[in-house]
Amino acid sequence: MEQKGELVSYRPDIKVVDCTLRDGGLVNNFEFSEDFVRDLYKANVAAGVDYMEFGYKASKEVFNVDDYGKWKFCDEKDIREIVGDNNTDLKISVMADVGRTDFKKDIIPKSESVIDMIRVATYINTIPAAIEMINYCADMGYEVTINIMAISTASENELDLALELLAAQSKASVIYLVDSYGSLYPEQIRRLADKYLKVAEKYGKSVGIHAHNNQQLAFANTIEACTIGVSYLDVTMSGMGRGAGNCYSELLMGFLRNPKYRISPVLKFVEKHMVPLKKAGVVWGCDVQYMITGNANQHPRTAIAFTADGRTDYDNFYTQITSYE
Amino acid sequence: MEQKGELVSYRPDIKVVDCTLRDGGLVNNFEFSEDFVRDLYKANVAAGVDYMEFGYKASKEVFNVDDYGKWKFCDEKDIREIVGDNNTDLKISVMADVGRTDFKKDIIPKSESVIDMIRVATYINTIPAAIEMINYCADMGYEVTINIMAISTASENELDLALELLAAQSKASVIYLVDSYGSLYPEQIRRLADKYLKVAEKYGKSVGIHAHNNQQLAFANTIEACTIGVSYLDVTMSGMGRGAGNCYSELLMGFLRNPKYRISPVLKFVEKHMVPLKKAGVVWGCDVQYMITGNANQHPRTAIAFTADGRTDYDNFYTQITSYE
Repeated sequence: MEQKGELVSYRPDIKVVDCTLRDGGLVNNFEFSEDFVRDLYKANVAAGVDYMEFGYKASKEVFNVDDYGKWKFCDEKDIREIVGDNNTDLKISVMADVGRTDFKKDIIPKSESVIDMIRVATYINTIPAAIEMINYCADMGYEVTINIMAISTASENELDLALELLAAQSKASVIYLVDSYGSLYPEQIRRLADKYLKVAEKYGKSVGIHAHNNQQLAFANTIEACTIGVSYLDVTMSGMGRGAGNCYSELLMGFLRNPKYRISPVLKFVEKHMVPLKKAGVVWGCDVQYMITGNANQHPRTAIAFTADGRTDYDNFYTQITSYE
Repeated sequence: MEQKGELVSYRPDIKVVDCTLRDGGLVNNFEFSEDFVRDLYKANVAAGVDYMEFGYKASKEVFNVDDYGKWKFCDEKDIREIVGDNNTDLKISVMADVGRTDFKKDIIPKSESVIDMIRVATYINTIPAAIEMINYCADMGYEVTINIMAISTASENELDLALELLAAQSKASVIYLVDSYGSLYPEQIRRLADKYLKVAEKYGKSVGIHAHNNQQLAFANTIEACTIGVSYLDVTMSGMGRGAGNCYSELLMGFLRNPKYRISPVLKFVEKHMVPLKKAGVVWGCDVQYMITGNANQHPRTAIAFTADGRTDYDNFYTQITSYE
């Protein structure tokens, strides 16, 4: 695999995708203040961020609207209340989970929507359903990405088949490498990114990366993937995201060399909103329990429960989660 | 550069060096409880750690003994009080700064000491003094390493000359790549490690890495350097070390595949000692101010002061430290 770009110049194909509301929403049940969301939008515009993901387009049949903050559902009117007609260079994205989105009802034609991109999230066993949804959204006029989750527990053979199928049959313009469990090391990320890139390039698509910080590798894995050609890079403010969280906007903004990106709006936002959020007791970020589930290549749910219980008996936890039969 | 080893087997040349007392001592003025030090020693022995660094061998002419905890000076009797004759597989190390160690007085013959290895720390402008000290220590019977600090601000040309000089003229068996400011990205670490390895191998020496976590890259940089052949890997419990701290023992122990390494003693130690230490208000670890100095390739002293002052005005700080003329 070849290095693409180096540390002094920049690659114009790189796009920064802010997922603070979406992945961060998994931490606080999508209950962000209006002020937070407005300021985040302004900060992203000022920082030169390319896409801002407002949340999920979740099915109101599957989920009770009263149980979640509004960004779980991302109604058109709620987004417009923040962005108006969004006359900025920042594009707007939402995530739609396969099987948990009423896409034929809730995805309206792009001409009527302020949303620019729909990111379809799938597991490897629902690829045909993902393709149906991707192509529906693409036909409605949206940019579409496909995010295959939990690949660190999928067989390599199935992953190869899934990538080929998605690349050949779906109208997604970006295929995302997702390290759901924060289990992958940089050398694995490079090898996988190379695999994704080879398939994607054959079909004129791009590749993105969504990293988790269980082993303090979210930033490293993001820039390592970038270095060999991955172009859509997911970040969140202060790494806010489920469990150990994601790649910090603060870090990626310092790394990128394109003069369109500015770190100051990010730093100001972090001071104004992320510091108080943490002080208020909203908990995310790398801690020993996440290192353990990441290293064990497991879903972080046990570590999230361990965190919620205020436990610090790390060795017991390690024994527990590595002793399942 | 070539990959050495892969993720399923292990390289027997790898050595883990615990620097908790030494780099962590820079956080709490070397004031560790006896209990902490005893348990750390036991944990390192049980975890299969190869070297434990007890602190500095600092000059009592330069530093006032009453101003620091004892591990700033590492008197033979103090180490022996913890380890006796150290009848274990764990070797004992101390660090000695060029110009701040009375080596001719304080370094006694190895035959009389329980210390196994002396790590000589130098800046690039004191290489001849470093060589004098290294060779003195080697002649006294110790394993010796040379740690060249702050190379991210040295000229490449000077670094090349320093490496060649140290490799050719010093009796150090290990040359350490040190990312003092936590400013280096994995692709830079790989390139530098490759440079160090080429010189070291020519003279039959090994290479080590000491990373800092300013940009959450300490673990990533450590394993990336390891992947291309670096064999001495520095860690600290919970990453305890000056400013943003170091590579976490917890993370490296999860990564290494040699069955001699065991993560449980590390996890138990973290629960018993590192959690209370943090709760008691001892502060280290990656935070926005360290990302900023790391990204700016600056000494973390301004970020340490910012932390001590309890400031969170990150954007002001960014403007300040990037506006010096």
